[in-house]
Amino acid sequence: MALYLIGLGLCGVKDITVRGLELVKNSDYVFMEYYTSILGVDVEELSKFYEKEIILADREMIENDFEQKILEKAKTQKVSLLVVGDPFSATTHIDLYTRAIQSGVKIEVLNNASIMNSCGITGLSLYRFGETVSIPYFTATWKPCSFLEKIVKNIACDYHTLVLLDIKVKEISEENLCRGKKIYEKPRFMSVNIALEQMLEAESQLNTGKISEDTLVVGVARIGSPTQKIISGKIKDLIKCDFGTPLHSLIVCAPTLHCMEKDMMEFYRTENVEKREAEKI
Amino acid sequence: MALYLIGLGLCGVKDITVRGLELVKNSDYVFMEYYTSILGVDVEELSKFYEKEIILADREMIENDFEQKILEKAKTQKVSLLVVGDPFSATTHIDLYTRAIQSGVKIEVLNNASIMNSCGITGLSLYRFGETVSIPYFTATWKPCSFLEKIVKNIACDYHTLVLLDIKVKEISEENLCRGKKIYEKPRFMSVNIALEQMLEAESQLNTGKISEDTLVVGVARIGSPTQKIISGKIKDLIKCDFGTPLHSLIVCAPTLHCMEKDMMEFYRTENVEKREAEKI
Repeated sequence: MALYLIGLGLCGVKDITVRGLELVKNSDYVFMEYYTSILGVDVEELSKFYEKEIILADREMIENDFEQKILEKAKTQKVSLLVVGDPFSATTHIDLYTRAIQSGVKIEVLNNASIMNSCGITGLSLYRFGETVSIPYFTATWKPCSFLEKIVKNIACDYHTLVLLDIKVKEISEENLCRGKKIYEKPRFMSVNIALEQMLEAESQLNTGKISEDTLVVGVARIGSPTQKIISGKIKDLIKCDFGTPLHSLIVCAPTLHCMEKDMMEFYRTENVEKREAEKI
Repeated sequence: MALYLIGLGLCGVKDITVRGLELVKNSDYVFMEYYTSILGVDVEELSKFYEKEIILADREMIENDFEQKILEKAKTQKVSLLVVGDPFSATTHIDLYTRAIQSGVKIEVLNNASIMNSCGITGLSLYRFGETVSIPYFTATWKPCSFLEKIVKNIACDYHTLVLLDIKVKEISEENLCRGKKIYEKPRFMSVNIALEQMLEAESQLNTGKISEDTLVVGVARIGSPTQKIISGKIKDLIKCDFGTPLHSLIVCAPTLHCMEKDMMEFYRTENVEKREAEKI
């Protein structure tokens, strides 16, 4: 019959589109992928809102059992696969999309907001972003710094950089992996603070001379939710700010800012954010 | 009371989010901005779906009368401002956002899909895009080529370029402008074909040596709609393809493609698209 690849947006059960909700309600099976990102709601709440059972699809199922567990069903029935944010902000889903088409399964994609466009609320022009980078959690022995090279390349082009922060869900520790024990670690979501610390650490390794404590950055948390937090400032200032619960992301500003971008960086400076919050109370 | 800045997504009345629809239905006034882009539905259909009167806000109202006509109402009542695509893919809306906050009006933003993330369906990694460029309609005497310089800069960085194509809505011809006559021209939407012709013309002016008839590009039309069309190929091949009705956009590929990107460019080659379409019939 059909496979619906449905983006859920960034926050809350009601960020799904009206058409998306109709398709979910009409589906025989509803899968939800839950490893690439998290939504500000739990699965039970979603399930209640949809009046449907939701089958969680973890990394293993998506990567290994897609044909058998999802696509096979979609040949004769209506199947929804829910994805937090937008379906095509991750390459995994492009792969699923082509595999569905190649199997002759009708597939429909429902786009939605993702961090890649909703970060436009910072006032930094979405047109001026270069390559998007990801910062992985450093360990004692593994400190990959290639993300910094990409940021520096964007700086040289006078582009902003969206920096996505590491998420560890359903990870198995090296120790348990060696012992063959399938014990999952507690989920971890990298904070703006850790990301900035790692950026400075990477700079001290690579000595690019392009990143310092005075580099202008914007930290964002829980974009699109009622508790979203956006603060701009130098790395040395933001490294001390509390952004609260996940998800966090980071933007490294281009060296030159347009007129309105400058105004917006002023608008989101800690002092101004605090002043507006105080006025509200 | 409140101003709701609501993204409508790319196609059809049902691309609004569930929360967005609730807010529209509860609004005292519903404005819709209709100059930066078009949606694949007409305003009457939207109005019927919302069971609300929709007040069209053209460029003049948005830029000149925002305070008086929209913000003033939002101080005491609930006002929705509908925007095709995502609210923050255009800088105008950032300006409205800050003006609302500075006037003490509570503002809520509802993100949605825009061409900037939905073009991910091409299989080109959204992480690898550089600056977004816009191609304006050339006239006999005005042929600005700076867009090509930006594309060439992205090529040098090995980034893809999303190219947005000119839209002329409610334009007044130079002749009528001189005569002081407010007569609007018929709307025009640049096709992939015209965009490619202009790209080659700009290259013949600038002689960058980086763009030729053999450059790999992807043309997209009506992304997200049931009639969406995506074709990849060399400029000389795509320049002859019929992409149908608006809106069209274009992507100029980075010189190096990742493995899956290569597969997807093959997947979207004219011959393969036609073969799949033939199999469907």
